[in-house]
Amino acid sequence: MALVSVSIGPAPPLQAKTNKYKIALCQLQVTPDKDGNIAHARARIEAAATAGAKLVVLPEIWNCPYAMETLPSYAEDIDGGGSPSVSMLSEVAAARKITVVGGSIPERSSGQLFNTCCVIGPGGEIKAKHRKLHLFGIDIPGDITFRESDTFTAGQELTVVDTDVGRIGIGICHDIRFPELAMLYRSRGAHLMCYPSAFNMSTGKLLWDLMQKSRAVDNQLFVATCSPARDTNSHSEYMIWGHSSLIGPFGEVLAAAGHEEATIIGEIDLSLIEAVREHLPLETQSRGDLYRLVDVQREYAS
Amino acid sequence: MALVSVSIGPAPPLQAKTNKYKIALCQLQVTPDKDGNIAHARARIEAAATAGAKLVVLPEIWNCPYAMETLPSYAEDIDGGGSPSVSMLSEVAAARKITVVGGSIPERSSGQLFNTCCVIGPGGEIKAKHRKLHLFGIDIPGDITFRESDTFTAGQELTVVDTDVGRIGIGICHDIRFPELAMLYRSRGAHLMCYPSAFNMSTGKLLWDLMQKSRAVDNQLFVATCSPARDTNSHSEYMIWGHSSLIGPFGEVLAAAGHEEATIIGEIDLSLIEAVREHLPLETQSRGDLYRLVDVQREYAS
Repeated sequence: MALVSVSIGPAPPLQAKTNKYKIALCQLQVTPDKDGNIAHARARIEAAATAGAKLVVLPEIWNCPYAMETLPSYAEDIDGGGSPSVSMLSEVAAARKITVVGGSIPERSSGQLFNTCCVIGPGGEIKAKHRKLHLFGIDIPGDITFRESDTFTAGQELTVVDTDVGRIGIGICHDIRFPELAMLYRSRGAHLMCYPSAFNMSTGKLLWDLMQKSRAVDNQLFVATCSPARDTNSHSEYMIWGHSSLIGPFGEVLAAAGHEEATIIGEIDLSLIEAVREHLPLETQSRGDLYRLVDVQREYAS
Repeated sequence: MALVSVSIGPAPPLQAKTNKYKIALCQLQVTPDKDGNIAHARARIEAAATAGAKLVVLPEIWNCPYAMETLPSYAEDIDGGGSPSVSMLSEVAAARKITVVGGSIPERSSGQLFNTCCVIGPGGEIKAKHRKLHLFGIDIPGDITFRESDTFTAGQELTVVDTDVGRIGIGICHDIRFPELAMLYRSRGAHLMCYPSAFNMSTGKLLWDLMQKSRAVDNQLFVATCSPARDTNSHSEYMIWGHSSLIGPFGEVLAAAGHEEATIIGEIDLSLIEAVREHLPLETQSRGDLYRLVDVQREYAS
């Protein structure tokens, strides 16, 4: 895993090999039937590829319900090759010659569980694996107490990956709440942040729109979020917000879902990044003499 | 000026001496008549104090129009005591025993011009002076080119000030675009960020609401912005957005103006900061092993 973060050199000028392309966000309806979820995701990815998408993004925890008590029983061993979910992503990416940011699934590794996103290249290869870095926890006594850390172990590495459609930084859901992560990804040259996510109804209403736009605007890059669809028939206490979106570097909404199952297709035009950075040169206006964000792993790796 | 930033020690636990108080944001209509602007601001501050405000905030550049070509002729020498604008703030703060975040005025010092905010205590004393750190510049060839740095010199110090109503971090307008500043203020223990500002119509529509909410939510503190009123009769190319606002630590809008002249009064309840930080402990969830924001001046001062 160390390879992913230390192999990235200084932030390069934006490469515009594939200047414009279509991205699809598959806001999937998830059920307790894992095989059904995998087959359904495959069909949605294939439909997105047919519609012209070169990059397809899936939601956080798309192969099973987001319920802490049942998550462990759905976990898969990605490194050991025992992952039907990732095998499907690999097959469909290779068959359709697309890049897939594979949302996340519960990953079992060395007796621990991680919330893990695989990025698959058009040859079907796993190009990167991001384990959620910031585990969600909320504690309102007498109302709601919820700790992902009771179930998951946090990842240890930032994930920036070079793909056919540009350099992508990966975060999972609560990772978006921490501005430092997006700022480091920008400094490592990312064009696009992908956040597979599953915000709930209360944080969704308050923060979902705000967080994705501010990460895009502060870092002058594209942000894509992908959530599962809301299951209004569910009796789960964790009701999903939905509203998967693609945000441009001016903070503009380029595509957005409601709360129901949908595949949203938007266009990413990398030249917009150069335009906004030329027009509003935040990087040259910033005050490195007053503050400096240290990328700890990159610092030690160099 | 060095005193302001180096005299602040490690971020203390929140002090709740004045747990709840009223804050007033005076969205002033500004004219080319400086004496008139000063008299008008005095009247609005007095009215706000009469309405119970313990803290009054004024807009960026409230004693003259925000027009680069005429700004120098309105500049005042604050340190030399030749500032009728600051003298008025001092008199009214002392008379009404309130704290005033005095927006900003063009300041002349050592042959340079600064965009400067004075914070006045209830004894009439100048408690802090913030010179805008990030000068706005935009360059869209054939459309708009605007550079504050042609007129102003940037400040060299962060400004955090302890007042009767809590610890306040000061930024001026474009300073809000840089998340690092608010993050450092939070780490220095600020309860409230005050941003006297004058966003224009295009950046206002796109970014005003977003920026103030994201600084509040990311740092779990209060954010107050104060703009001049829009002058719809003006022929200036720089039309003001308005919409002065008070945002709470959940990102909630506690009070907001439209674009016309208005004094907005909202309540700050410092216990909300403790509540949101207990419920959603972002600080303990953050990953100091992956990133670290260095407060350069504080680092060297300690």
